[in-house]
Amino acid sequence: MTTTLQPRWLDADQQRIWRSFLNGVAKINERLEAELRCFGLDLGEYEILVHLSEAPDRSLRMSDLADRVRQSRSRLTHTVARMETKGLVARMACPSDRRGVIALMTNHGYELLVEAAPAHVESVRRALLDPVDPDDFVALGRAMDAVTSVQD
Amino acid sequence: MTTTLQPRWLDADQQRIWRSFLNGVAKINERLEAELRCFGLDLGEYEILVHLSEAPDRSLRMSDLADRVRQSRSRLTHTVARMETKGLVARMACPSDRRGVIALMTNHGYELLVEAAPAHVESVRRALLDPVDPDDFVALGRAMDAVTSVQD
Repeated sequence: MTTTLQPRWLDADQQRIWRSFLNGVAKINERLEAELRCFGLDLGEYEILVHLSEAPDRSLRMSDLADRVRQSRSRLTHTVARMETKGLVARMACPSDRRGVIALMTNHGYELLVEAAPAHVESVRRALLDPVDPDDFVALGRAMDAVTSVQD
Repeated sequence: MTTTLQPRWLDADQQRIWRSFLNGVAKINERLEAELRCFGLDLGEYEILVHLSEAPDRSLRMSDLADRVRQSRSRLTHTVARMETKGLVARMACPSDRRGVIALMTNHGYELLVEAAPAHVESVRRALLDPVDPDDFVALGRAMDAVTSVQD
């Protein structure tokens, strides 16, 4: 934790934009979560299904999956256990590494993703792409790439 | 839930920007949460303290507070109960409405906010304002205002 002696407070415009960001993110999350609830999923579970569906054999090591969905190992373990009871994924020992665990998408998980995806993409469009000016959408992408490229 | 017959799938650029958005938001949240943990707070609790500190008598009806911090009533009740056990807020009956409940910031809550604010604003700057081009930051604000103005 590094703080300067004199805090670099936000000016009025920066403060307003920062609050707009918090409000916009909350609104997008609310809308996507509401849509996914119709399929018994939350946003974290949906992302896990997407990443597994794109992986060879629809399976990933838990440690790789955690990186891709930006969840801590402990949170991911909890989410995947919940998804396992719903029959969406299964866990198995990693053949090449005795300490490793692999998460594998079930057919039921794949079918649910195929069922939910059209409604999900429609809610992403309605919540973000439709209301936002195309140039601002591109700028949003640049801004978020700059955020992600900051070293911890 | 309205879906078109033919899903309006995202094209490759839209998909990439959408994922950048998810990654950037996750990164910002991680950094702000890590900073606030040093003060025993999470982002939801911090926002509650900010809104109470700006209200007359440092108090708000729970229903107004829920709107301002974009939390459901049930989630807010849970968060405020946790903050009450930490001595940061207190709840009391609303004098003008027997069914209403008011959340009130304690002196301890105010002092903790004053203590945490410089580090928090510094982490907002380092996570978002410093890495992002100023024009893109303004565009981000416009984009998020457009998102928030969509009617449910």
